[in-house]
Amino acid sequence: MTHMNERLLKQIEFIKEIDKLKSIFRKSYLLDRSRYENDAEHTWHLTVMAILLQEYANERNLNLLRVLKMLIIHDIVEIDAGDTFAYDAKGNEDKFERESQAAKRIFGLLPEDQQHEMNQLWVEYEQRQTPEAQFASALDRLQPLLHNYVTEGKSWQENGITSDKVLARIRGIREGSAELGKLAETIVRSAVEKGYLSK
Amino acid sequence: MTHMNERLLKQIEFIKEIDKLKSIFRKSYLLDRSRYENDAEHTWHLTVMAILLQEYANERNLNLLRVLKMLIIHDIVEIDAGDTFAYDAKGNEDKFERESQAAKRIFGLLPEDQQHEMNQLWVEYEQRQTPEAQFASALDRLQPLLHNYVTEGKSWQENGITSDKVLARIRGIREGSAELGKLAETIVRSAVEKGYLSK
Repeated sequence: MTHMNERLLKQIEFIKEIDKLKSIFRKSYLLDRSRYENDAEHTWHLTVMAILLQEYANERNLNLLRVLKMLIIHDIVEIDAGDTFAYDAKGNEDKFERESQAAKRIFGLLPEDQQHEMNQLWVEYEQRQTPEAQFASALDRLQPLLHNYVTEGKSWQENGITSDKVLARIRGIREGSAELGKLAETIVRSAVEKGYLSK
Repeated sequence: MTHMNERLLKQIEFIKEIDKLKSIFRKSYLLDRSRYENDAEHTWHLTVMAILLQEYANERNLNLLRVLKMLIIHDIVEIDAGDTFAYDAKGNEDKFERESQAAKRIFGLLPEDQQHEMNQLWVEYEQRQTPEAQFASALDRLQPLLHNYVTEGKSWQENGITSDKVLARIRGIREGSAELGKLAETIVRSAVEKGYLSK
């Protein structure tokens, strides 16, 4: 493949590199409980949610394309940094530092303009200051909650997670969507009632 | 979860249903050759490619949001219809019929307006008449080619696929992107030279 121009070559190298995201596993089970889900398929799930649930975003004029782009690239840094479990206090201490290093290396495979775009999208997502980042982040918190609920709290129980931790984790959903924030609280209450989640 | 409004309830049911896409396996290997990839992670990979390679689309004013939406939902029908291997002539005979039934059932879980939108996106993708559908489809043909090349033709060899079949399969890439069509042809030539793919 020596005839490719340098720009396309870099893009293809990046596309090959990110295949590794399919082997980064999270602490959420598939709904059939057969295994943990990986970052790539998790991300896909979030993109469908974004399309279907955009009507619940606090921001009426949401830029859906930007939400999708942010979601699509938000976990790529985990190829180097690994998945940091939301409830791992120690792991979360240096998460941003580890992920920044990863962003530098992985996005660095791209042509400069695209490296810059990917980095901007990732930083916007991490900072959660724009309506698009807040909505994207809300979905990223809602989806594992749904998975835990449907699997009757399998991952919560295996990892000793209690309702106060889950409530703290889902609080941010409101910033992106008041409606989905309410849904998340309803799910947590129901999970406690049904014994899926300990008080 | 009895307090949810009916619309949101339907959307959540759909979001739960499509988790099954993570267990529909294709005939392409991950680049580390450890296993076949599934439809959900494959779709994610295509969305990254769309963002990075849109500059090569024949259409200068490509609607990227529409490309992404089409890609994101294009394989959902395979939850019921299964993955039909591109080189399975018999399976491809009734593919559209099987997938249409699947679209009816699965998109039918959604509120009517969204069911309609999903169906339109899927039909647009399948018909390959718009620049967006042609570009999306080009990526869907390029990605497994790349996977086969990097894995030294593992799936081609296991399934007895020859270069004439691959060339016929990738011909359509040109419709969406002349540049990526050329890239695909270069990859096939190189694969034959290296012995990854039989003449």
